[in-house]
Amino acid sequence: MFNRRDALKSIIVGGAASVFSPNTLLASTAPKKEKLGIALVGLGYYSTDLLAPALQMTEKCYLAGIVTGTPEKAEKWKQKYNIPDKNIYNYQNFDSIANNPDIDVVYVVLPPSMHKEYTIRAAKAGKHVFCEKPMAPSVSDCMAMIKTCNDNKVSLAIGYRCQHDPNTQEFMRITKEKLYGKVRMVACGTGYFDNRTTHWKQNKALGGGVMGDMGVYALQGARLATGEEPIAVTAQASTTRPEIYKEVEETMMFQLQFPSGALAACHTSFGIQMNYLQVNYERGWLRMDSLSNYSGNKGSHSKGIIDFPIKNQQAKQLDEDCMALMNSTQLIAPGEEGLRDIKVVEAIYKAAQNGGTVKI
Amino acid sequence: MFNRRDALKSIIVGGAASVFSPNTLLASTAPKKEKLGIALVGLGYYSTDLLAPALQMTEKCYLAGIVTGTPEKAEKWKQKYNIPDKNIYNYQNFDSIANNPDIDVVYVVLPPSMHKEYTIRAAKAGKHVFCEKPMAPSVSDCMAMIKTCNDNKVSLAIGYRCQHDPNTQEFMRITKEKLYGKVRMVACGTGYFDNRTTHWKQNKALGGGVMGDMGVYALQGARLATGEEPIAVTAQASTTRPEIYKEVEETMMFQLQFPSGALAACHTSFGIQMNYLQVNYERGWLRMDSLSNYSGNKGSHSKGIIDFPIKNQQAKQLDEDCMALMNSTQLIAPGEEGLRDIKVVEAIYKAAQNGGTVKI
Repeated sequence: MFNRRDALKSIIVGGAASVFSPNTLLASTAPKKEKLGIALVGLGYYSTDLLAPALQMTEKCYLAGIVTGTPEKAEKWKQKYNIPDKNIYNYQNFDSIANNPDIDVVYVVLPPSMHKEYTIRAAKAGKHVFCEKPMAPSVSDCMAMIKTCNDNKVSLAIGYRCQHDPNTQEFMRITKEKLYGKVRMVACGTGYFDNRTTHWKQNKALGGGVMGDMGVYALQGARLATGEEPIAVTAQASTTRPEIYKEVEETMMFQLQFPSGALAACHTSFGIQMNYLQVNYERGWLRMDSLSNYSGNKGSHSKGIIDFPIKNQQAKQLDEDCMALMNSTQLIAPGEEGLRDIKVVEAIYKAAQNGGTVKI
Repeated sequence: MFNRRDALKSIIVGGAASVFSPNTLLASTAPKKEKLGIALVGLGYYSTDLLAPALQMTEKCYLAGIVTGTPEKAEKWKQKYNIPDKNIYNYQNFDSIANNPDIDVVYVVLPPSMHKEYTIRAAKAGKHVFCEKPMAPSVSDCMAMIKTCNDNKVSLAIGYRCQHDPNTQEFMRITKEKLYGKVRMVACGTGYFDNRTTHWKQNKALGGGVMGDMGVYALQGARLATGEEPIAVTAQASTTRPEIYKEVEETMMFQLQFPSGALAACHTSFGIQMNYLQVNYERGWLRMDSLSNYSGNKGSHSKGIIDFPIKNQQAKQLDEDCMALMNSTQLIAPGEEGLRDIKVVEAIYKAAQNGGTVKI
């Protein structure tokens, strides 16, 4: 029997006979869904305050299901968002999501240490995966996630919301089009004062530490502003609150060398409120302030300003990623982009530990 | 016979019987000079384009003499500034300046490697010394300069023009008065594209290398913005033009740890145009852009702007330093301040060479 799930698979994946290309899904003559169904896995702050509200604004997707280990949360979300019981999962029965045609995409919003497991389980269930950043605590996790998605012919997008923000895209364009010549120096600071003491961000086993969390924004600032991949790093980890940051670093300063000769001085912290990007080119400068907030990112440069309005960053990200799935176009930030960051993050930790330069 | 020089010495130094305190000159009942006579040693760009014009605007001092190894320059300056022959010296007869009552202060504007020799010769001639930054290439040079000035009961001021700039003083005030709480993070970039190839700045023996030159502005940015002395440094030297920067570094990134826990990420280059300071406090931020130009330095912070007019930075520096000499008050930037920077510069070079953290 040709059920709805099979129909969707043939639409999205392009059918078993078609040539599969990760992140580019072939078109089909079968009727397409107008909106993809998203299931959020992990109902913490980011799902609750950012993604669920964004999914009320999206045009290409909707909040179809939830996965949570907390029955009270399930009940609350069910009422608030009118989610049918059959689309509510816990971590034990999650794999049966494979049989649910309402769910096209599983969005993993768990602590980083759990990204690999839930990405792999979702991929094996035949669902596309959106995964929050940092992609995972290790390069090997990232590679396993990418491989399993490829093997199961599903797409994998990393939740780099800023790459969907036109303000970010504008500074990337200025570099790419060499408006001011080559990039010579980048400085980037991202951080906030976190007064929690027992969050996963302070827990090594759960994937905590500032580098993978806020640090990835600073790293992305440097990578996107240069349009290059770093070839060597130095780094210095520190903390001003050793009683809280026992297992992971509170603050990381890291310095990057790029193939063109461009340099970056980045810093990230759970103890310091900062959010900016400074780029010095051969013949000009650019500054984002703020760089990676949920809204209101803006900047200026030698000849102008960067201040593009955006209704909702997460809604734009979700819609654009879903459109890429529906139209078989490239995802803005596929798993490979997440992996590029984690390769650098691993090198930064190694450099911070050993005190020397680590080549990538 | 009580000649004019002796009279001046008794005015400025306060007489042999008085308790001598370096940089604080005791008042005297003897009539004071209304303007101190300055002799510039070294007539390169900075003397020619900045100091000599400034000395036409000063109220407490004037261009009384010059010391140069180039007879053509001597003739040109003599004509332009109406300098009497008796106040024109070369490097051979320089020490006879001791007998010239017109000269109260010798301003050393030579390459850094020569600062020690000319500061010491000027001090031994009984003249006060203003010395350009960087004070000298080594801590031992700085200490010898301070000691000789003390031994000869003359004052020593380092040419930190920015410390006389009210825009600099304002960000120092904001830190000192804890307007936004403690400083947590400083980022500071100072540099320009130097297209010269055989200047002393590219010559190690003459005291070249970007760290002592533009790097001192970034270091001052971090030291003045925190109001603290760094206790540990890491650093990375690099160049994009090894054919020119054979002996010294073109670019230095350096990171500082301060006793309060504040951190600084600084970068300085002869290949990158940049001039800014970013400060993130516990409860606010501050940004100078530009930080250390000859004019037009300005900034903003969480609750306001920093934009104090200044007629001429060098004239203000010269007048304030001369007033300190005449009124027996503290110099804004005495030799000890130059030494504080060079201590850190030495640690930065060591850290860059060895790749680890150097404690200060």
